[in-house]
Amino acid sequence: MTQNGKQKIRLGMVGGGQDAFIGYVHRIAARLDGEYELVAGALSSRSEIAKSSAMELGIVQERAYTDYEEMARVEAKRDDGVEVVAIVTPNHVHFGPVKAFLEAGIHVICDKPLTAQLEEAIALTQIKPKNDAKFLLTHNYTGYPLMRQARDMVKSAKLGKIRIVQVEYPQDWLTEDVQNKQADWRMDPAKSGAGGCIGDIGTHAYNLVRFVTGLQTEAISAELTSFVSGRQLDDNVHIMMRFEGGARGMLWASQVAPGNENGLQLRIYGEKASLSWRQDNPNQMWFCPFGEPQQLLTRGGAGFGGEGVSARIPSGHPEGFLEAFATLYADFAQVIRGESEGALLPSLADGVEGMKFINAAVQSSKDDGKWTKI
Amino acid sequence: MTQNGKQKIRLGMVGGGQDAFIGYVHRIAARLDGEYELVAGALSSRSEIAKSSAMELGIVQERAYTDYEEMARVEAKRDDGVEVVAIVTPNHVHFGPVKAFLEAGIHVICDKPLTAQLEEAIALTQIKPKNDAKFLLTHNYTGYPLMRQARDMVKSAKLGKIRIVQVEYPQDWLTEDVQNKQADWRMDPAKSGAGGCIGDIGTHAYNLVRFVTGLQTEAISAELTSFVSGRQLDDNVHIMMRFEGGARGMLWASQVAPGNENGLQLRIYGEKASLSWRQDNPNQMWFCPFGEPQQLLTRGGAGFGGEGVSARIPSGHPEGFLEAFATLYADFAQVIRGESEGALLPSLADGVEGMKFINAAVQSSKDDGKWTKI
Amino acid sequence: MTQNGKQKIRLGMVGGGQDAFIGYVHRIAARLDGEYELVAGALSSRSEIAKSSAMELGIVQERAYTDYEEMARVEAKRDDGVEVVAIVTPNHVHFGPVKAFLEAGIHVICDKPLTAQLEEAIALTQIKPKNDAKFLLTHNYTGYPLMRQARDMVKSAKLGKIRIVQVEYPQDWLTEDVQNKQADWRMDPAKSGAGGCIGDIGTHAYNLVRFVTGLQTEAISAELTSFVSGRQLDDNVHIMMRFEGGARGMLWASQVAPGNENGLQLRIYGEKASLSWRQDNPNQMWFCPFGEPQQLLTRGGAGFGGEGVSARIPSGHPEGFLEAFATLYADFAQVIRGESEGALLPSLADGVEGMKFINAAVQSSKDDGKWTKI
Amino acid sequence: MTQNGKQKIRLGMVGGGQDAFIGYVHRIAARLDGEYELVAGALSSRSEIAKSSAMELGIVQERAYTDYEEMARVEAKRDDGVEVVAIVTPNHVHFGPVKAFLEAGIHVICDKPLTAQLEEAIALTQIKPKNDAKFLLTHNYTGYPLMRQARDMVKSAKLGKIRIVQVEYPQDWLTEDVQNKQADWRMDPAKSGAGGCIGDIGTHAYNLVRFVTGLQTEAISAELTSFVSGRQLDDNVHIMMRFEGGARGMLWASQVAPGNENGLQLRIYGEKASLSWRQDNPNQMWFCPFGEPQQLLTRGGAGFGGEGVSARIPSGHPEGFLEAFATLYADFAQVIRGESEGALLPSLADGVEGMKFINAAVQSSKDDGKWTKI
Repeated sequence: MTQNGKQKIRLGMVGGGQDAFIGYVHRIAARLDGEYELVAGALSSRSEIAKSSAMELGIVQERAYTDYEEMARVEAKRDDGVEVVAIVTPNHVHFGPVKAFLEAGIHVICDKPLTAQLEEAIALTQIKPKNDAKFLLTHNYTGYPLMRQARDMVKSAKLGKIRIVQVEYPQDWLTEDVQNKQADWRMDPAKSGAGGCIGDIGTHAYNLVRFVTGLQTEAISAELTSFVSGRQLDDNVHIMMRFEGGARGMLWASQVAPGNENGLQLRIYGEKASLSWRQDNPNQMWFCPFGEPQQLLTRGGAGFGGEGVSARIPSGHPEGFLEAFATLYADFAQVIRGESEGALLPSLADGVEGMKFINAAVQSSKDDGKWTKI
Repeated sequence: MTQNGKQKIRLGMVGGGQDAFIGYVHRIAARLDGEYELVAGALSSRSEIAKSSAMELGIVQERAYTDYEEMARVEAKRDDGVEVVAIVTPNHVHFGPVKAFLEAGIHVICDKPLTAQLEEAIALTQIKPKNDAKFLLTHNYTGYPLMRQARDMVKSAKLGKIRIVQVEYPQDWLTEDVQNKQADWRMDPAKSGAGGCIGDIGTHAYNLVRFVTGLQTEAISAELTSFVSGRQLDDNVHIMMRFEGGARGMLWASQVAPGNENGLQLRIYGEKASLSWRQDNPNQMWFCPFGEPQQLLTRGGAGFGGEGVSARIPSGHPEGFLEAFATLYADFAQVIRGESEGALLPSLADGVEGMKFINAAVQSSKDDGKWTKI
Repeated sequence: MTQNGKQKIRLGMVGGGQDAFIGYVHRIAARLDGEYELVAGALSSRSEIAKSSAMELGIVQERAYTDYEEMARVEAKRDDGVEVVAIVTPNHVHFGPVKAFLEAGIHVICDKPLTAQLEEAIALTQIKPKNDAKFLLTHNYTGYPLMRQARDMVKSAKLGKIRIVQVEYPQDWLTEDVQNKQADWRMDPAKSGAGGCIGDIGTHAYNLVRFVTGLQTEAISAELTSFVSGRQLDDNVHIMMRFEGGARGMLWASQVAPGNENGLQLRIYGEKASLSWRQDNPNQMWFCPFGEPQQLLTRGGAGFGGEGVSARIPSGHPEGFLEAFATLYADFAQVIRGESEGALLPSLADGVEGMKFINAAVQSSKDDGKWTKI
Repeated sequence: MTQNGKQKIRLGMVGGGQDAFIGYVHRIAARLDGEYELVAGALSSRSEIAKSSAMELGIVQERAYTDYEEMARVEAKRDDGVEVVAIVTPNHVHFGPVKAFLEAGIHVICDKPLTAQLEEAIALTQIKPKNDAKFLLTHNYTGYPLMRQARDMVKSAKLGKIRIVQVEYPQDWLTEDVQNKQADWRMDPAKSGAGGCIGDIGTHAYNLVRFVTGLQTEAISAELTSFVSGRQLDDNVHIMMRFEGGARGMLWASQVAPGNENGLQLRIYGEKASLSWRQDNPNQMWFCPFGEPQQLLTRGGAGFGGEGVSARIPSGHPEGFLEAFATLYADFAQVIRGESEGALLPSLADGVEGMKFINAAVQSSKDDGKWTKI
């Protein structure tokens, strides 16, 4: 800290130009706790959009790039160059920028899934980041205070040995055949990879199960379906899961389930108790000890707390999606500053796990639901 | 109708002596609409209990039997003999009484599942009931007004073509190793047959899917688990389903899921809309037309109605489990009086379907989740 | 009990002919537990309807009366005469039958409110019932298992000293100007007395507060409104309440609140904890001890029990309106048989309290909200 | 916009030093949309705290003031002086800073309620702000997207003429006698003014009713209570309301209601339909047209939209308290830039209305609930 107080971390962004959704979310998350300042970007590969998007965001023109490789090279040389970059491009344009910036010694925050192809994901694990540059994958649902509390409760054996995991992530926005920027790349195998719904949201569900339960998946049995005529990738995912140690699970993800906006839900049943949480009401979680009345835990309420569990605002003031996102950024800021190991943050290895999961799901489905190892 | 008005139907009961649960429920259901009068019973095979149970229920001593075959024979000869009998014994004592009474020309109401063994179920379909005696299987969840409305809405294409069915039936009462009358026979293969949880409650879930959607199941992939040490039958059921015409589904039934008392839930997603209903709040059902606000339908409220859909009391006065049960009895009374065909009532054929389903589930699970025909 | 077992109680009914709502409900309640048999009735003052209604209910023609005084006189003389009668007429026809039957030595079950005029209610308290005939007022909401548990929890100081009571009973069926049998007498001062909404449902809310909390009302401040043009009686009720000992409360009752079918809700806050319950989901009740997680109690679930607290069926099988109604009948059957004092049952004195409450509400409203004693 | 893009607005803050709650919230709200930069502050009147708090927030030492009057004077002269200041001190230290900054030509954002005393509030309306400096009062609940939609629906007559308004705001954090920074000044008449709970949260409820319905309050009847021994100000508020045009209402606010964290709830009933919303689940709102199924509207979902109604993120991604707060800041940024009139923003006049409301409530309560004009 200088005599004038704490300085913000200099942030760059790749992707996220006008009309982008997730870049916008990342920027809010970066701002929320006052830890970052956006100073450079390759917001689009089209010059016009890159420059006007930068203008709107207060980025000076000379740092409004169209080529992420140039951006990495130039920023790495500046005294006031970006310390970290957020990669918010479609899946098939994750690999290049992640590699370029890590090799330039610049920390990387990358949207999920890690890449479009498993090979690319593995290749990233073999990179030698310059200057020990760090990496963050934004599985944002792990940033919810109650999901961190759930993880802590499982670890401290409040549920007993886990027996059953029921996770689901239904949406409805692809119920009909839609054509728009968001839908197009998600349903294009060249841009998304082999998974549609499974890669877009199934990975979130899976990552969340892993984050909260710590269970290793032994094998899965999957049935991926594409209900809308002409659609190349799956829009509905049914999976049964076997975990090491004997637990069993089900995963349902869908983008054709009318009435579900973003219905991520996780339920975990152990020998002694269960937990249940829905993302669309993220400030509440049910804890049901067998043989006792059910308890409704709240973010910040009685019984709240645990490893890495905190809340910005008092209970009853609902904290939302953006704040959870910002928690990842804030934790990662601590990592960059060398104040924390970031033990709760999704890592490169987590990204690889996600890709393996997608592949196994696709494979099992092709094999008529055969139990497939991960 | 005589000059003195409507006469009640004379009802007998097999099983249902002191401490029995489901016999008690059947008696309430029989009383609710004033259509039946309980006049005879083989309430227990133990004389002491059979007699004292009969006393409490106002049955005269000479009609308190211990042997259902004797009861069938004697009652069939009396001028005031029972017109119908309710079979409320454990699964392995369904076949005998059903056969005896149908062959004696007495109508039969039988609790589910139909029998303990598929062979017995099939054998029952080959019986020639005397005097065209009728049969009812009490899949009571089909008696809920909103489940009948759901069926009507599916039939009238309010949902469009069905794509996805998610049904679940979690309970928690067998989370630990319990020993009591209710638990013992349910977990004894000699009394329950090959299925534990799948036969006890999985069949309810399955029957409800069939009742509401009308879908034919093509194949299922199942994973049955017994989590409690020493338990001989499954206490958790995971099933993926393929329906004719391309729909897909998941079924979860469990008796080891803490926090769930009797959490039967059905969700159906079509091309145009979805329906969602929970048995523990049976007076409400969500109807979600794609692209429009979600609607909360209520029993008796706006939009309520359809084939066989009615309610005893106004909306907002919650109707419960018992009333749904009674609806089956009341409908069946109309069948007995010759006033109705009972088109909505579960039949012998439905009972067979249930047995096939159980068998296929057990088989698929043994075969490592292989897709198994029904 | 004779050698042939328990005999049913012989029941008569005054009112409740074809198309009546509450008579129908009473009959179901009488049947549910198998304790009563309906054998006589003055179901209508119009001979045609009285006779055809009796026919449908299996009452012999000689016991289908049109005049309740004749019915009381004749039935009292018969060896097989009614032991108890249910009065289900509009409010202004309660006084006469109650008096006639009590003086004839026949037990009485009467729908609420007790009478249309306070004077009549008081007069009833001065009657000398022949043969110690008993009386029951059907404030049916006190029959819900969880309301009885709430009462027990308050008495056993689980909440600490009560500070705040929030009760509400909104409906919407009179939102527009409707003309039908149910609406007409309720909005006719000659038949309902001085209160509209307050007498019809406000009394239920008030009685429930008294039943559960045991608090004595010191004074109330009311604002009664008639929103629909031409309506003679109130259709919306706002009341603030002061209880002895310092507690404060609010009561809202309305029949013009769109979206509310029958939204009776009771919330009680003490120094140590609170309770919250809604009639449209009667199988659940929130118990919130200060500084601890909220607990969701269920009918029959963990922690269920207390004085007079029981359930017919296991938790998770929702028990409804009708069963609560039947609980009153069943409890009263015990009173008639001399097996119980009926300590939990609404009494004549309760009926008087209800009338006083209505009068005070009307008076305070006329007096510009002045605090008015009860 | 310069060639280097949009510049952030230079923000100052009065109050909000270490351990302050609402200053922290204001800072997050200021950051969320990237419109403000905090550059100066009188964060505490104690030098040590003022300086260290500034350090943590990246404010240079020369702009870390201890005296808001000095801050106003100095900043007004700097070329890079603050353009706007946020006042986040206790109620009794609102008047001075608001006056000082407006007269220095600096825009003001002030926390609610406007002042501790009505006279001060009125005096503020008579100030002549230099350079037409603008003012914002942070009634943050008006920033929720669905509250803005509710307002739009009322204005466009979706509910018909309003009849009944039920608003409540229960909390439980003062259930026992607590001593801390947050509690102390709120229950100290010298710092809070005459109202405790009514001023702290009752004003929020009231302002929200006005914002959404546009109704003018004609008179109220109030009962303020202090339940905790030794407490000088009210901790529970019961109010009945009469609105111009005939509508009626109830307001309940409490800080001693166990189980309520921050339970702001608004229900509005019109001749044609009703609306219902809870702040602890702010992304959903019920719309109930009379005689039709109830509809669950969601933020961003079907039917979402209207004057000033927008959302940052898609439906199903719950937006929280902070975002609503930030909406006010963002709207106000548009006002400062001259791009908007800020029609939806709470104004000085709104602040005065709030003070009048508090005074009338206190007065009516003292007068035994007498109907009191506002």
